[in-house]
Amino acid sequence: MAEVILNILPLHEDERAPFLEATPGVEQRFFRGLTDDTKLIPLTDLTLLEDVTVVLGSLSPTLIPLVPNLKWLQTWSAGVDYYLKPNLLPDATMITSAVGAYGPSVSEHLFATLLTLCKRLHTYRDQQFQGIWKDLGPIKTLDGATVLMVGAGDIGSRFCTMCKAMGAHTIGLKRTLTPPPAGIDEIHAIDQLDDFLPQADVVCLAVPHAPETIHLMDARRLALMKSDAILLNGGRGSAVDPDALLAALRSGHLWGVGLDVTEPEPLPQDHPLWQEPKLLLTPHIAGGLHLSTTRTRINQIALENLKHYLADQPLRNRMR
Amino acid sequence: MAEVILNILPLHEDERAPFLEATPGVEQRFFRGLTDDTKLIPLTDLTLLEDVTVVLGSLSPTLIPLVPNLKWLQTWSAGVDYYLKPNLLPDATMITSAVGAYGPSVSEHLFATLLTLCKRLHTYRDQQFQGIWKDLGPIKTLDGATVLMVGAGDIGSRFCTMCKAMGAHTIGLKRTLTPPPAGIDEIHAIDQLDDFLPQADVVCLAVPHAPETIHLMDARRLALMKSDAILLNGGRGSAVDPDALLAALRSGHLWGVGLDVTEPEPLPQDHPLWQEPKLLLTPHIAGGLHLSTTRTRINQIALENLKHYLADQPLRNRMR
Repeated sequence: MAEVILNILPLHEDERAPFLEATPGVEQRFFRGLTDDTKLIPLTDLTLLEDVTVVLGSLSPTLIPLVPNLKWLQTWSAGVDYYLKPNLLPDATMITSAVGAYGPSVSEHLFATLLTLCKRLHTYRDQQFQGIWKDLGPIKTLDGATVLMVGAGDIGSRFCTMCKAMGAHTIGLKRTLTPPPAGIDEIHAIDQLDDFLPQADVVCLAVPHAPETIHLMDARRLALMKSDAILLNGGRGSAVDPDALLAALRSGHLWGVGLDVTEPEPLPQDHPLWQEPKLLLTPHIAGGLHLSTTRTRINQIALENLKHYLADQPLRNRMR
Repeated sequence: MAEVILNILPLHEDERAPFLEATPGVEQRFFRGLTDDTKLIPLTDLTLLEDVTVVLGSLSPTLIPLVPNLKWLQTWSAGVDYYLKPNLLPDATMITSAVGAYGPSVSEHLFATLLTLCKRLHTYRDQQFQGIWKDLGPIKTLDGATVLMVGAGDIGSRFCTMCKAMGAHTIGLKRTLTPPPAGIDEIHAIDQLDDFLPQADVVCLAVPHAPETIHLMDARRLALMKSDAILLNGGRGSAVDPDALLAALRSGHLWGVGLDVTEPEPLPQDHPLWQEPKLLLTPHIAGGLHLSTTRTRINQIALENLKHYLADQPLRNRMR
């Protein structure tokens, strides 16, 4: 059966050329464009999916049943949980992700949040519009600090590299022990989390949503943290128990907390966490297409994989 | 004449020992302590200054006339402008500063402010207390950005080192041309400022107050900056014309501005700059004793100089 490629990647029209050049003699349908570098045009005209064998881009799972001949799906997300649900895709369908595309963006966001908290810039901002020229006292530095990175993949490695550049000692916790990735001084098994929490000045979470990461940071583990430590979560909101976090913050525990992900999401407008002054909350924007380089990276991964696919070579970021 | 040392450095009582050990047989009077690591106890009991020959610490200029035999003054400030005023101190009195002690603190503050602005964290903070889960669109990265450091001394070198660690290209402008300090890719004369402003994504000012730096960034030079550039000032407030900056911000020019110093200081509560959303304003807190390591560095510089002074060796940071 002839290959038919559905390309819904975030491409400007003038960025289609390399994809066309990579697929001579193969039909490739471009069904999507960008309004600007960050906003995708919603899919509208998807009349014929039946003969499509390759989808480049995160086609909505609701449309997946319309693509019965799908052999390979390249998502633009880092996680592919949705597509792994039973009975959605035949076992033979390959799935590759864009993991790695978001590392720079998410790690920089986490790092910026950390420095904002260290220097109390969020609190200075709170008093700015009242015209208050008031010294808020001691601040923190990463120089000499111990950073505990929970989930030491691409994001963790990049985050720790930045912390190290400012003088921090970095400890990574991983499910599978490997030699320490770049920027990580020591690597340990994630089941040693309780041992390392009491010595960390910064605890940064970048773990995927999984049964074992749900409420990983519960009341007991939050209490194990230093009273003036900083907690960051840039992975999945479910990794932090929101009630336990609220109680900890209300009791005066912790120097500050930065959350880009919450449980639930979006965080309801009347959720009390919004009102915690020591918490800096952003609406899951660390990743996405907020940084134009992320878009470029997604498209590069897809293009590279497309060439490999047509040449019968192994694909990168294969999740199944 | 016997040396008599007045030590008003920010020392805890248990930190006096190395100073006493460095001065066997010399009278040393400790007139000051700390309430905590950042707050000095005000001077009260200063009955006898007449025989003092050495002052370690920034004795108020109003008290200087009470120390007629002063041979050496070691300030805890980086600048010594106050003590250079005519007729305050005899020409023969040596003055040394604590320049270098504040570099880590000020450079880290500037860097944190820069990242806050890049990632729009100040604006996310603005909407936090209203419980608004809203994506604010594209953000900035330092990866590939050009940073123009105006005043490439200790602070500038440290600031640029951090920017480089995140992928920036750094250009330093200096009055006296030297080989590029650490972290600075290119060094040029400060009179080339106009040539470099249009290519900079970040313009960071760390220049002392001097006739030639007053309103260095005026309306004309602000207009030379890229429309989506970021301006930071961590030196002296006088380096930026506040009216010109206000007009620029109101016209929509610039991505963001971070000021830790203003003209005047404190900025009056009703000053319109407080209300500019793209401006992040902190009340001259980048330096001071906000970081405990700054205090340690000041005391180290003073102790080292004290040993040199008593051994008739050249002093560090000599300003006169």
